[in-house]
Amino acid sequence: MQSFTGEHILSVNQFNHDSIQKIFSVANQMQPYALRQKRTKVLDGAILGNLFFEASTRTRVSFGTAFNLLGGEVRETTGMESSALAKGESLFDTARVLSGYSDVVAMRHPDNGSVAEFAVGSRVPVINGGDGSNEHPTQALLDLYTIEKERNYHGESIDGLHIAMIGDLKHGRTVHSLSKLLCLFKNIRFTLISPKELAMPDSIIDTIENAGHQVVISDTLEGSLDADICYQTRIQEERFPSKDEANKYRGKFRLNQQVYTKHFQSNTVIMHPLPRDSRADANELDNDLNLNPNLAIFRQTDNGVLVRMALFALTLGVENIVSKYDTDVHWYSNKK
Amino acid sequence: MQSFTGEHILSVNQFNHDSIQKIFSVANQMQPYALRQKRTKVLDGAILGNLFFEASTRTRVSFGTAFNLLGGEVRETTGMESSALAKGESLFDTARVLSGYSDVVAMRHPDNGSVAEFAVGSRVPVINGGDGSNEHPTQALLDLYTIEKERNYHGESIDGLHIAMIGDLKHGRTVHSLSKLLCLFKNIRFTLISPKELAMPDSIIDTIENAGHQVVISDTLEGSLDADICYQTRIQEERFPSKDEANKYRGKFRLNQQVYTKHFQSNTVIMHPLPRDSRADANELDNDLNLNPNLAIFRQTDNGVLVRMALFALTLGVENIVSKYDTDVHWYSNKK
Amino acid sequence: MQSFTGEHILSVNQFNHDSIQKIFSVANQMQPYALRQKRTKVLDGAILGNLFFEASTRTRVSFGTAFNLLGGEVRETTGMESSALAKGESLFDTARVLSGYSDVVAMRHPDNGSVAEFAVGSRVPVINGGDGSNEHPTQALLDLYTIEKERNYHGESIDGLHIAMIGDLKHGRTVHSLSKLLCLFKNIRFTLISPKELAMPDSIIDTIENAGHQVVISDTLEGSLDADICYQTRIQEERFPSKDEANKYRGKFRLNQQVYTKHFQSNTVIMHPLPRDSRADANELDNDLNLNPNLAIFRQTDNGVLVRMALFALTLGVENIVSKYDTDVHWYSNKK
Repeated sequence: MQSFTGEHILSVNQFNHDSIQKIFSVANQMQPYALRQKRTKVLDGAILGNLFFEASTRTRVSFGTAFNLLGGEVRETTGMESSALAKGESLFDTARVLSGYSDVVAMRHPDNGSVAEFAVGSRVPVINGGDGSNEHPTQALLDLYTIEKERNYHGESIDGLHIAMIGDLKHGRTVHSLSKLLCLFKNIRFTLISPKELAMPDSIIDTIENAGHQVVISDTLEGSLDADICYQTRIQEERFPSKDEANKYRGKFRLNQQVYTKHFQSNTVIMHPLPRDSRADANELDNDLNLNPNLAIFRQTDNGVLVRMALFALTLGVENIVSKYDTDVHWYSNKK
Repeated sequence: MQSFTGEHILSVNQFNHDSIQKIFSVANQMQPYALRQKRTKVLDGAILGNLFFEASTRTRVSFGTAFNLLGGEVRETTGMESSALAKGESLFDTARVLSGYSDVVAMRHPDNGSVAEFAVGSRVPVINGGDGSNEHPTQALLDLYTIEKERNYHGESIDGLHIAMIGDLKHGRTVHSLSKLLCLFKNIRFTLISPKELAMPDSIIDTIENAGHQVVISDTLEGSLDADICYQTRIQEERFPSKDEANKYRGKFRLNQQVYTKHFQSNTVIMHPLPRDSRADANELDNDLNLNPNLAIFRQTDNGVLVRMALFALTLGVENIVSKYDTDVHWYSNKK
Repeated sequence: MQSFTGEHILSVNQFNHDSIQKIFSVANQMQPYALRQKRTKVLDGAILGNLFFEASTRTRVSFGTAFNLLGGEVRETTGMESSALAKGESLFDTARVLSGYSDVVAMRHPDNGSVAEFAVGSRVPVINGGDGSNEHPTQALLDLYTIEKERNYHGESIDGLHIAMIGDLKHGRTVHSLSKLLCLFKNIRFTLISPKELAMPDSIIDTIENAGHQVVISDTLEGSLDADICYQTRIQEERFPSKDEANKYRGKFRLNQQVYTKHFQSNTVIMHPLPRDSRADANELDNDLNLNPNLAIFRQTDNGVLVRMALFALTLGVENIVSKYDTDVHWYSNKK
């Protein structure tokens, strides 16, 4: 079994079936801390450098919370203008300096490849929190972890899964990464539903098929789909030449309770990378699904904390001693 | 006695005389920690989500410090642009997600009603840190708590108080909320001094009179006022159609040592919601009052920490076990 | 020996030879904590108000990390717009209020003299993190501390040092402050190399010469310099009337491995205040020097943490009890 101690977490490509199972096994152990049934001080005194050179409240706070839940402290940097990078400092220099201020780094940056470049200069493990359109491995891991937990709940494993991915499959970084990770498992069926212009890239489809999995491609949502997971994505307006261009596709694959009932099984799990656009004309994932127990979108973000706790524990080599530093929780929590 | 455990703190309207006394009693117990005579770790491991979607250094840091003083950690979000709200995420979704990252939330937001809307989606208690021109209950509580402490210092209670409120009473959210809270006590005299155009709204005056208290209204500061408290407010330039319009009223009720001596008693306590405009032409609350021992404006902000500590302790249900986790303070502090 | 307990750290002018030695002696004791060989909780429960009214990622995070390494918590404020200062609040009021929220303050502000003005209103010790072009005492201390450590490594002390300062010596605040501190030692030789227009100010040269040290001034880098330290500075574009004006000087004293070999000894230590401009046309301090073991620039930033830890320990009066609160470090660190 591969050890993660001292390693960078930069790309989904660095994982195999065993390392995924290792991460998920540690994530499972983190549940009682996230639920406030107990707490741990295993990283009491450790410092996370939480470097968000691009804004992302959700991911930034999730990393910070995960580190706090292990007992550690967080030193945070947000935005680009507040950075020496603006004065021409190289990522190598920035990494050399800032890694001297922490025990581990979580980093988001708008440029593809920037986090890996930073990691070269870093003296501590670096976890990629998203580098442009390139990689966002913790999102892919939390998606996959959610699939495993939802499947377990129904007495199944990831092997044999049927997943329907819907919407903008061309620009959606999350569906690309998740597809790659699913390839590590057995006998997966992919149903890929998107407008032709927003289809899943051929390279990803090749990867899936070369790994021996089954792919069905469609540009309409019709008939009854026996999918276990419906993974809905948003039209990423910012990737289109104009708002009008984006609007051409908006609402084509709108999901609401009526559409769900018509096309999916009564226990098909609904996922979405969030944020979900809830404005009246978004037509993406309607609020009437909030009452549907299969809507897993908020379980996804909760699972993100567990996965990030696991990655911190693993890269800092404390995964086996977490419970040794347990203490009680004295305060009220409805999560317990 | 009402319990606050697990409750949201959204509006001054949710308090009664008993609940106010409960909060103040817990705030009193917080004094030794704020003065660094000892410290407590009762919330060691708990996480505050400090969500300031609108800038407010004073309030933000006060909440954060209050939580740290109870032993907890703070994960902070500032500004709107760094938020998924900008991509059309509903407050419900934001609340659902971010409340998964903390044990309690303090939140400020520019839109009226936004914090209450957030609270619907939140899985943890939410404390309103100000929502537009609507509510800022912790400011009202710290003002009232300051009045109680100043009155106690003079051997009096809030009952029977004579308070003079001066300046822009139309736009001043703090005087509205404070007036409502004072109505929960007995036999209060309000002297409301403002230009006619900036008078206290009728609805507030009705509330005061319906509760059986006495109101005197004036548009000039004249004669000798036997007020116990002089509550000065600022001309809120941003609420006027133009800077010139605001300037028409500027300095009309300027308070300095000379004005104070002329119109007030030698022990009338001076309060102000802060920040005070100290620019030369502000004519609001002059710096020569800094040497006046009755100037309570910095005692107000200190008291804000105690009140916020009390609210955290109460909503998290630890108000009776705070001292159980006491430890010594080893470092120098001139607050002791 | 002067005590620092409760004192502000505002200017290099407040130090003498003894107080410098005291700070360095405490900084030396901080090394094991920074290297994660052990940790201390001496300031567990203390709060740093980290007030950066001007952006400076490096300095801000360094202060925060230093405080965390002593066991304390950090409440941070960044930027000016998010501050009541923008509404006309005086620095005195801001200080009065914000100092009520912490045990010690580190502050950076764009205006000369602002930190000293803030300190007048503060109820806790204030450490200057840079006020405009005026003072940045912790940078000067970390530079001097680096010189001492590098000299010790070679079996020497600061006394008798030969330092070459190169580049823009007119605008470089760091070389001015460092020069003043070096004057507290014995028998220093300064070789000052800059374009005539960017020469070291006469007042600094007078200070050096009046203290009995030796100064050689040149506008070319030529011949063999037997300097122990080569302190390189950057052309501060923002101080010139135009970019073209700045570019006239750019690259005049470029340092790379070839230049180093030609003009310096094989063990001359290379320093730079950072950030270093690594863009292709910067011609300042080339990346080929990264492999040179005498390049001390990243040791400088590491030493900054030690010096700031020392200042916190000293101003809060815990310098003699730090190790009393030691605990073990459980997690992986390659710094050990």
